Amino acid sequence: MKSSNALIIQSGGSTPVINQSLAGILRESKKLASFTKIYGAIHGTDGLLKRNITDLTNISSLDISSIATTPGAALGSSRYKITQSNATNILNILSDYKIAYLFIIGGNDSAANAKELGTLSKISGYKLQVIHVPKTIDNDLIGTDHSPGFGSTARFIALATMGAGKDAQTMGQSAPITIIEVMGRDAGWLAASSSIGKNTCQDPPHIVCVPEHNINYEHFLNQLENTYRQFGYAVAVVAENSKNEEGIIGKTEKALYEDQFGHKYFEGAGYHLSKLAESRLKVRVRYEKPGTIQRSMVSCISIVDSTEAEMVGTKAVQYALQGANEVMISIKRDQLNSKYSSSTELTPVKNVADKVKYLPANYFDNQNLLPTEDFKSYAIPLIGSPLPIFANLLK
Amino acid sequence: MKSSNALIIQSGGSTPVINQSLAGILRESKKLASFTKIYGAIHGTDGLLKRNITDLTNISSLDISSIATTPGAALGSSRYKITQSNATNILNILSDYKIAYLFIIGGNDSAANAKELGTLSKISGYKLQVIHVPKTIDNDLIGTDHSPGFGSTARFIALATMGAGKDAQTMGQSAPITIIEVMGRDAGWLAASSSIGKNTCQDPPHIVCVPEHNINYEHFLNQLENTYRQFGYAVAVVAENSKNEEGIIGKTEKALYEDQFGHKYFEGAGYHLSKLAESRLKVRVRYEKPGTIQRSMVSCISIVDSTEAEMVGTKAVQYALQGANEVMISIKRDQLNSKYSSSTELTPVKNVADKVKYLPANYFDNQNLLPTEDFKSYAIPLIGSPLPIFANLLK
Repeated sequence: MKSSNALIIQSGGSTPVINQSLAGILRESKKLASFTKIYGAIHGTDGLLKRNITDLTNISSLDISSIATTPGAALGSSRYKITQSNATNILNILSDYKIAYLFIIGGNDSAANAKELGTLSKISGYKLQVIHVPKTIDNDLIGTDHSPGFGSTARFIALATMGAGKDAQTMGQSAPITIIEVMGRDAGWLAASSSIGKNTCQDPPHIVCVPEHNINYEHFLNQLENTYRQFGYAVAVVAENSKNEEGIIGKTEKALYEDQFGHKYFEGAGYHLSKLAESRLKVRVRYEKPGTIQRSMVSCISIVDSTEAEMVGTKAVQYALQGANEVMISIKRDQLNSKYSSSTELTPVKNVADKVKYLPANYFDNQNLLPTEDFKSYAIPLIGSPLPIFANLLK
Repeated sequence: MKSSNALIIQSGGSTPVINQSLAGILRESKKLASFTKIYGAIHGTDGLLKRNITDLTNISSLDISSIATTPGAALGSSRYKITQSNATNILNILSDYKIAYLFIIGGNDSAANAKELGTLSKISGYKLQVIHVPKTIDNDLIGTDHSPGFGSTARFIALATMGAGKDAQTMGQSAPITIIEVMGRDAGWLAASSSIGKNTCQDPPHIVCVPEHNINYEHFLNQLENTYRQFGYAVAVVAENSKNEEGIIGKTEKALYEDQFGHKYFEGAGYHLSKLAESRLKVRVRYEKPGTIQRSMVSCISIVDSTEAEMVGTKAVQYALQGANEVMISIKRDQLNSKYSSSTELTPVKNVADKVKYLPANYFDNQNLLPTEDFKSYAIPLIGSPLPIFANLLK
């Protein structure tokens, strides 16, 4: 039954599977003939405010399939905070386009936007259902077992660590230590994922630094040196916002570079720790930073992640038509049998907005600076097919 | 027919398929029952000099298969220059192990080592056949159409550029420019490979910097800015040893950091160009450096590359038993039909040693700072299965 118009917004950092959620919404909308018109905002809320809106109503199934397998937000994204003062503008635009359903594919900030719009539409009497479709590589959304985007990026990081580890082990004396800086904002889920392929103490990573636990430089360097002395190589994986007692590492150091306009540049935690390690150990320490490659590498997409990203999109349409409002489509891990499966449920966006899901205490061993087996049990099903097992002649 | 003993050395930087060549040698040796004993030097020539040698004669087919699919040099690698003065030592050790065949899996430096050992064994009357099995992600070996290791790393770089490009396009104003620094030593083959997935002028990369052509900062920044103004985003891929008129970029700048021992640290060309771009364009410029991840990511292995890496190993044994000496196993591109195929031939190591195969003039358009269609025709078959085609709603 066609009821009214819908609008889709993609928001925040992109993931390798964010467009699977977009495809899920579009496919289910076509299938159920749910909406008179279905629109997409170009470059998120920024674009919406400029009325930069595209009509997706007649998009072909072929085009949807092509979008689904493309990384990055196909509609374009933005980082925009909806407040009481700018929401009236937004509601006016939604009204002009007769939008009754708003799907926001995004993370914590998007949940806050969904909450704000929900509240203000009620106050102003504008009939709107806001559905938050979760998406973040950082896995820091509360109210869901995990978030679409995390599994694929975790798979990239696990494979990158295994590969870079083999490289460092191979090169031995000429470049025995590698420090990899990964994303994750204020939570250590992605950094911890570097350990998913680690089976023995000789395997990389040998140290993981997460923002939840301040780094003690002496502890870090001792562990790095001990590993190097024992195995002939060492790999540390460092979250971008790793901290020491003074705050985020790098930001509290002397600026590395000052440009002609007086802007100061700081390098991240990985860079600083690599220089520190180089000074201490007097060997070459490689510093690697996959950056946005980690969140857009299609050859590392997890089938589980990709399937669930579409699932939350599909379910968003179904729940919306059942009257859901101001909710996030959460993923629930089914515990019925040993084979991993998942389903969805609803979480009020007010419970998610502006909150961060940190790595729980039992997922990280701060003494050994390594994720625990509990973390691995949690993360392994999410990265899809099993990781390869590498040979080792250099025992 | 068993004749005598063989030794395998892996040398220089690793590749995702260097162990396919090792597997090729081991499989063919087992199949032909060629050698009484087959040894491997642990950590290359360095290990050989310490008599750190492992006996691979009875290695199982299962173990060979496991080694074949592992990145990094399974035997360990080193960077060691064989000279007239240390070669006598090496020949003594080879003599103690009754080595009649020496297989060196390596790049330009290894060809020089092969040449040196060949010359000195003749002078000293020690009967030795030295076979160079090519390997380098840099693709800078002359005397071969291309080198095993290049295709897989090129595939990684092409996919990384496509993905990071989609990310930058998606993020638009909040992070519209990305500079990716890739390897390649003094040649631009890998940087050029970032263009393999580029189909339109809007697709990334928009600028490629190769060591063969000095960068003019003004030209670079103008092109970056024009692209950004036109398409809302821009991606530049920069080879690690890109130069300006003063030499390698970064090395001629002020040191970024000086540690407590007085060691000075310089960042690479990509870092410098990103800071330069940030100053000029006043927008966030992301700097990404996949480092050894690009040469060890198993999910990007090219089937063609992997097959050819095994082929040169297999052929090395066959040619050795036919009496070949001081030769490299070259790959020849067959031009018989439109479908890509390749075979092997022999090139004297003296023609390869210490030489560098640069990107030819017709493979790079220095006016537009982009690889040409000729380069793409050359490289496309080497990366294996076709790259995905991404959707674009942000035209």
